[in-house]
Amino acid sequence: MKKRFEDDGMALHTDLYQINMAETYWYDGIHNKKAVFELYFRKIPFGNGYAIFAGLERIIDYLKNFRFTESDIEYLRHELGYKEDFLAYLKGMTFTGTLKAMREGEVVFGNEPILRLEAPLAEAQIVETALLNIVNYQTLIATKASRIKQVVGEEPAMEFGGRRAHELDAATWGTRAAYIGGFDSTSNVRAGKLFGIPVSGTHAHSLVQTYKDEYTAFHKYAERHKNCVFLVDTYDTLKSGVPTAIKVAKELGDRINFIGIRLDSGDLAYLSKKARKMLDEAGFHDTKIIASNDLDEYTIMNLKAQGAKIDSWGIGTKLITAFDQAALGAVYKLVSIENEEGVMEDTIKISGNPEKVTTPGLKRLYRIINKQNGKSEGDYLAMEYENPAEEERLKMFHPVHTFISKFVTNFEARELHEPIFQEGKLVYAQPDVQEIRAFAKENLQLLWKEHKRSLNPEEYPVDLSQACWDNKMRNIAEVQEKVKATSQ
Amino acid sequence: MKKRFEDDGMALHTDLYQINMAETYWYDGIHNKKAVFELYFRKIPFGNGYAIFAGLERIIDYLKNFRFTESDIEYLRHELGYKEDFLAYLKGMTFTGTLKAMREGEVVFGNEPILRLEAPLAEAQIVETALLNIVNYQTLIATKASRIKQVVGEEPAMEFGGRRAHELDAATWGTRAAYIGGFDSTSNVRAGKLFGIPVSGTHAHSLVQTYKDEYTAFHKYAERHKNCVFLVDTYDTLKSGVPTAIKVAKELGDRINFIGIRLDSGDLAYLSKKARKMLDEAGFHDTKIIASNDLDEYTIMNLKAQGAKIDSWGIGTKLITAFDQAALGAVYKLVSIENEEGVMEDTIKISGNPEKVTTPGLKRLYRIINKQNGKSEGDYLAMEYENPAEEERLKMFHPVHTFISKFVTNFEARELHEPIFQEGKLVYAQPDVQEIRAFAKENLQLLWKEHKRSLNPEEYPVDLSQACWDNKMRNIAEVQEKVKATSQ
Repeated sequence: MKKRFEDDGMALHTDLYQINMAETYWYDGIHNKKAVFELYFRKIPFGNGYAIFAGLERIIDYLKNFRFTESDIEYLRHELGYKEDFLAYLKGMTFTGTLKAMREGEVVFGNEPILRLEAPLAEAQIVETALLNIVNYQTLIATKASRIKQVVGEEPAMEFGGRRAHELDAATWGTRAAYIGGFDSTSNVRAGKLFGIPVSGTHAHSLVQTYKDEYTAFHKYAERHKNCVFLVDTYDTLKSGVPTAIKVAKELGDRINFIGIRLDSGDLAYLSKKARKMLDEAGFHDTKIIASNDLDEYTIMNLKAQGAKIDSWGIGTKLITAFDQAALGAVYKLVSIENEEGVMEDTIKISGNPEKVTTPGLKRLYRIINKQNGKSEGDYLAMEYENPAEEERLKMFHPVHTFISKFVTNFEARELHEPIFQEGKLVYAQPDVQEIRAFAKENLQLLWKEHKRSLNPEEYPVDLSQACWDNKMRNIAEVQEKVKATSQ
Repeated sequence: MKKRFEDDGMALHTDLYQINMAETYWYDGIHNKKAVFELYFRKIPFGNGYAIFAGLERIIDYLKNFRFTESDIEYLRHELGYKEDFLAYLKGMTFTGTLKAMREGEVVFGNEPILRLEAPLAEAQIVETALLNIVNYQTLIATKASRIKQVVGEEPAMEFGGRRAHELDAATWGTRAAYIGGFDSTSNVRAGKLFGIPVSGTHAHSLVQTYKDEYTAFHKYAERHKNCVFLVDTYDTLKSGVPTAIKVAKELGDRINFIGIRLDSGDLAYLSKKARKMLDEAGFHDTKIIASNDLDEYTIMNLKAQGAKIDSWGIGTKLITAFDQAALGAVYKLVSIENEEGVMEDTIKISGNPEKVTTPGLKRLYRIINKQNGKSEGDYLAMEYENPAEEERLKMFHPVHTFISKFVTNFEARELHEPIFQEGKLVYAQPDVQEIRAFAKENLQLLWKEHKRSLNPEEYPVDLSQACWDNKMRNIAEVQEKVKATSQ
């Protein structure tokens, strides 16, 4: 029989190598060296022009409650064979680091740190897996939702994906991420309760099957629900579903609000146009047509191009699983570490794949906003000691093709990281999800629409300062020297 | 500020329409009608020839603990406006139904019920969303893992995907599903603890960055870990990583077991062959080469075809997110419901898409095993009252192309559903995950290898009995009559 643990917690939600490394550091006496890691992704998913950061709320919960439980320590002792002195250290471990992060809902691009964690080396290492796990999923879904919402426009977009999500947490936190990305409601009741997201939903095919015919089912439903949306495709949409919905609505008259019908299968373009005509002819001009069935930004754009008469969109599988690109590849890289003298020193990782070379050192991230038009000129990654706000004329150049550059004047340099934890203490006032959603919407205003189109968006610049670039090149040269020495 | 609820539970992890339907039934006094739902998917994912069922353990947890909490009722009252009498009913609701299901690890195909739930109508409806959410994800991953393992063969396959999974639950339960599907270990420590899955892992690039050079890092790691696997691609695999690993292993001699090196970037075919040569030349013939970096069944098959010298495979993103098909589309359909006289009556859902038409009625599912060769002839869906074991000569015909048929003699008809809950009471002894994994492996032996190849596998027959087919046709004809009557 399987074991269950009353005191189960999340500290063991990590990769074994993190604990092995922590052990190495602890025995070597360097586990408390201050280390700085940056978390970022390299490539925006879905070919989109931007991403939307989500995940901070759960990260805060995780770090606040970070602690190995009795059963965790037991497991590490008896099953994995760690020694008592190291286990005693783990047992006392809490998160004592300093976290700076973007606010949730922030617009984010490739190769810029979403968050920056300064913590004792061993702590910083053990929390890596959970931080990535949370940011990768929630940011992926907030981005997908925002991308879909760009195509939907002002019409309501409803999240319907719970049944296809990757287990329970994804349904819950994915719903929240979708709402942050601009969705208007969800069918998920628990997410509604936990986060205060508007919930929506009417009835399923099984209601019609239960009552054997649509007429009885719609009547019964209407008896208890003044606002009626009838699902019309259980047997035959145009021959049975729509006419029956109209019949019931006429019979009940003012006793119900005939809000809409929902189409969940078949040719949505054709059916919606026919259904619209039938509703209009019956005088139900305000009754909406709601569509669902494997929708995403591509099908929605196509349906709109075909003149489908759809007023509201229920989007499930393709959103909540980010079906066309089901993973965001954010990484967590060591950029600086305390040396023997207590001074922070740069670190770098080189790779055969040039895009995987890290950008070393302590840095700050800014959004450079043109004061004249209120639009963003790009993001700017500078060394910690630099202050771009002091520059009158800021040179921004492409981080790969460095000959592409521009000068910006009359700008605001808005720093994108907020302090979240200060030496283990939460110092951030968490906004509610409505504020986060509004913040995301507002931030998208900073972008030219060329960055927001779903196909071939214009690339948004994320540039390094000259000092940051020079520092990276110096670090690369140093490593190359070292490799040369080893291979000789 | 967001709200937190101490008494948070999973009963609200459902779609709003489930609660609306339950409300309709409750006011109509039919909420306790016995209803039978079947849960099944239509199409095996990844173009695979079979799927592996996983998810039952979590379903048992969910149903055992099914109960609306105080804060759930409060939310339904104040935020969603449900009335007191209905809320009082929900407050007392527990799961009182009867669940029959396949055992976890069972080999499963399209259009056959994985589980069959008989419960009071309102209960059966409310639990739908969570059951689908759990089965869809866990079965998807167990299937993907099994598919990958078919290509890997006897070499170890390690699950490394936690950081890319869709939030925490997916990392945890996805790991368990991967292990059921045939993976050998995981990097996820918590999954190791909760389920008793072997854990594996060594160190990351950050260890090397921390110590600034590979020589020191490998030495330090080796001081605390007798069994050493060195990650060799932090700076330059062939010029620095592999030579340094060999140097350290030679220096430390018997004080360590130089288990392996790990390659995590670059051309794995080329690098593994070169690294193998270097290790062999240094006398480390038993030292293994472990590869990771966006692997899946396709890249692994290719690497093998290229003669890559890889002994062990670390598989993350593509497994844990089922990247190439990130959703399983299992559905949950009403097949029978109690009528006014307390007799069970068939129900059906028709659709414009013929594959979406349900198969009505109370049924049982059998695997027809040829006693002569021990191989399965196909699965057989029969009416509840039939007993195929009594037939001497069983006719099996294709459920769509009915002219394709065969007769089977000398067979065992093995029923595939176990009783799990009996009127709300758990009656199933849950096996541990090692037993489940062994059961999956053993069950795959029943299949001809033609069903198990990853490309264009032979379709495995899932057939209806004659009575089941006739019953379905009768139900379709009845609905068509009804639709005709409505549209006239």
